Amino acid sequence: MAEETLLYEGKAKKVFATSDPGVVRVLYKDDATAFNGEKRGTIAGKGAINNQMSNLLFRYLEEHGVPTHFVEEISERETLVRKVEIIPLEVVVRNIAAGSFSKRFGIEEGTPLERPLVEFYYKNDALGDPLVTDDHALILHLATADDLAELRRLALAVNDLLVRRFREAGLILVDFKLEFGRLPSGEIVLADEISPDTCRLWDERTREKLDKDRFRRDLGGVEEAYQEVWARLKGGVAR
Amino acid sequence: MAEETLLYEGKAKKVFATSDPGVVRVLYKDDATAFNGEKRGTIAGKGAINNQMSNLLFRYLEEHGVPTHFVEEISERETLVRKVEIIPLEVVVRNIAAGSFSKRFGIEEGTPLERPLVEFYYKNDALGDPLVTDDHALILHLATADDLAELRRLALAVNDLLVRRFREAGLILVDFKLEFGRLPSGEIVLADEISPDTCRLWDERTREKLDKDRFRRDLGGVEEAYQEVWARLKGGVAR
Ligand SMILES: Nc1ncnc2c1ncn2[C@@H]1O[C@H](COP(=O)(O)OP(=O)(O)OP(=O)(O)O)[C@@H](O)[C@H]1O
Ligand SMILES: Nc1ncnc2c1ncn2[C@@H]1O[C@H](COP(=O)(O)OP(=O)(O)OP(=O)(O)O)[C@@H](O)[C@H]1O
Ligand SMILES: [Mg+2]
Ligand SMILES: [Mg+2]
Repeated sequence: MAEETLLYEGKAKKVFATSDPGVVRVLYKDDATAFNGEKRGTIAGKGAINNQMSNLLFRYLEEHGVPTHFVEEISERETLVRKVEIIPLEVVVRNIAAGSFSKRFGIEEGTPLERPLVEFYYKNDALGDPLVTDDHALILHLATADDLAELRRLALAVNDLLVRRFREAGLILVDFKLEFGRLPSGEIVLADEISPDTCRLWDERTREKLDKDRFRRDLGGVEEAYQEVWARLKGGVAR
Repeated sequence: MAEETLLYEGKAKKVFATSDPGVVRVLYKDDATAFNGEKRGTIAGKGAINNQMSNLLFRYLEEHGVPTHFVEEISERETLVRKVEIIPLEVVVRNIAAGSFSKRFGIEEGTPLERPLVEFYYKNDALGDPLVTDDHALILHLATADDLAELRRLALAVNDLLVRRFREAGLILVDFKLEFGRLPSGEIVLADEISPDTCRLWDERTREKLDKDRFRRDLGGVEEAYQEVWARLKGGVAR
């Protein structure tokens, strides 16, 4: 393989060009950061888990009608995906109060929401990814009103499917962050990753946290939690 | 007058019951606070100015079709208003980037917005009055979707009228905060106050700040700024 151009190195992944201008190669790293990069560390084996878990879920979502960037897994840590223009909004879906939502509204972590909630955050590290309203997104030209409607529709469809898929694995999907991108055709597809880095996942019975909150909050057993989630998802209902 | 019951003492005003259960008496104080009560002080003469200025503007808005709580000014610092159930949303309208908006989005103070922007903040001191999206307001039962539409409509109507009225006084209305309340009939009316405490007002020619930012940012000439705004508004265009 000819030498490839590194297009972007993020906190968790590297993105390389390929010979096909419409396809990029994503390499998942073990690096972990939290609180907008303030806390840094390594989670051994995370890259391989996040890559394979994202791909398993992207395939599942595609099968159920959600368009994604997924093309082909090429190694434990590497995947070919359709190159998209990322929409600069982090799309968060919440089923249960946790994290910044609990803090913002003084609602105890673990309180179920009466329906899934979609939030948009401006994807801008320098500004700390601030929460935005629809009017903010429109006035800052981050997206059009049609885009926002489509992002909401897709995010809620993804939530319905993921809640079900995780429940089969004995996991509660508390909340998660998605990124969407635009193909040259203009179509919006799901991009980035779906992993314990981007989802809050609790054990169905014990409510134990099995996600990046173990790293954020120094709860220990971080690697084990990622492995447990991946083992359960792969194995279907067997636990 | 029989002794009156103090219903609420806020940071800037006291609210008393009257013999009419549908009417309360508001007493405007000279006390000033900023940054959710962290900074405290007194602005001599502020109570009288904020009272009279609010009333002048409420009358003006009523004349132009906006329903308000205003009933009757009873002294320099005291006004009778219709008692309402305050909707727990602070409604902010912005014409020009400033304050928290500039900070949140890294947009230089003074940058005009392409259209007036309406924002809702959850009126909750303990939580620091957080910004909310429409979905937050709905899921927390702070207002209904119809309420939010009505608040937006009224806030934008108020903005159009106030921009015009302040311009006649040589002032630029940068942004402002409104509170709305519900009458027993269910009708939503404009309540609380409209003053240099709740509006950012800049001199049309020099862009000098003539509002509470002089207090917040220790710019000096606080009393003089309040007096200047009031003198210009009362005097119409004469400056
Ligand atoms: N299909 C895709 N095409 C192009 N870029 C993508 C695609 N999927 C994800 N990306 C982007 O690639 C980058 C992945 O790197 P990583 O997740 O490490 O970034 P990060 O450190 O989280 O920083 P960022 O805040 O940019 O996401 C992100 O910027 C992500 O938006
Ligand atoms: N017509 C009205 N009927 C009932 N309450 C009103 C009316 N107009 C304003 N209020 C309320 O009266 C109080 C006025 O007091 P003040 O403005 O000092 O409060 P504050 O310190 O700003 O605190 P708050 O955060 O409650 O506004 C506010 O809570 C305001 O919402
Ligand atoms: Mg990322
Ligand atoms: Mg007040």
